[in-house]
Amino acid sequence: MKEKIIQESIQLFGEKGFKETSIQDIVDALSVTKGTFYYYYKSKTELLMAIHLKYIDELLRKQEEIIHDGSKPYKQKLHEIVYMLIHDIEKEGLSAKVFFREMRNLTEEDMAEVIKKRDQFRLNIQQLLEAGIGAGEFRSDLPMDIVTFGILGMTNWSYFWFDPNGRVSDAEVSDIFLKMVLQGLKG
Amino acid sequence: MKEKIIQESIQLFGEKGFKETSIQDIVDALSVTKGTFYYYYKSKTELLMAIHLKYIDELLRKQEEIIHDGSKPYKQKLHEIVYMLIHDIEKEGLSAKVFFREMRNLTEEDMAEVIKKRDQFRLNIQQLLEAGIGAGEFRSDLPMDIVTFGILGMTNWSYFWFDPNGRVSDAEVSDIFLKMVLQGLKG
Repeated sequence: MKEKIIQESIQLFGEKGFKETSIQDIVDALSVTKGTFYYYYKSKTELLMAIHLKYIDELLRKQEEIIHDGSKPYKQKLHEIVYMLIHDIEKEGLSAKVFFREMRNLTEEDMAEVIKKRDQFRLNIQQLLEAGIGAGEFRSDLPMDIVTFGILGMTNWSYFWFDPNGRVSDAEVSDIFLKMVLQGLKG
Repeated sequence: MKEKIIQESIQLFGEKGFKETSIQDIVDALSVTKGTFYYYYKSKTELLMAIHLKYIDELLRKQEEIIHDGSKPYKQKLHEIVYMLIHDIEKEGLSAKVFFREMRNLTEEDMAEVIKKRDQFRLNIQQLLEAGIGAGEFRSDLPMDIVTFGILGMTNWSYFWFDPNGRVSDAEVSDIFLKMVLQGLKG
């Protein structure tokens, strides 16, 4: 039931918005009582935090799996992280929407915890790039913190435009972005 | 007064949010009457549209100025557009915030008009890149529509992290992004 409440709320928060969705809407959609809701979550805000944590923890877990695979070159790891993000935004569209749009409705303390995890995700990419410099895979004359923001901008922005039913697949977008970022556009 | 109402509302909408700001809040901040407000705008929604148009029209105007300067190579024009966007997000932070965050509060018709202008801005970049391929400045094997989304992602995402008082200036961020996009990260 806990997981069902999360799934249904992602749907409702994503479609109508967090503020516009009441606990009554959630329990109605699940055909359960408010008592059931309060058995699992103290409040709508606590539920929103559970959604945020589920989303970012899952991304961090998958990212660490990619990073800790010793057998792959850094370039490939970067490629897999970029693909993971674009694929995730495609597959988990409503979760991503709730994550990007409703964060400001978290409590201050919860928001700080989520931001810390987001920062960790970003720093993991930066460290990957810096390790790749050490291995001679990446150029060493660019500050990798800014480069990381650039890469995250490319991937995260896809949330606003990427169409899973469009001409180009998530894998193709990742390939194009990687060529662009690794080899550059110069003719 | 029309311009003053716009400036004050950008401040209030940016800080408190569009829905959370009343017309009363706006006229109070300007020490004028509601009659004055309604002399210039029929509604808060009409005012929001005026803010959106001002923001996107100004960006389009500056972009076209850059594009139509025949004396510069395409690479430099791309550089100037990237700088313009990051600089603008720095200088017009609250306008950018209102533009990105409150668009869903426009009427359907107004939203369609703003989206058309946003699309025009994006297509102008794509055409610039395609013209640059023709001139041998850019590689020809990548679909420039997707590349354009990548570049806009890098610049627009800076709204979420760029700190005008930070270590790196808007001009430096643009330089790093351009090196990354033109030459690539490969070591």
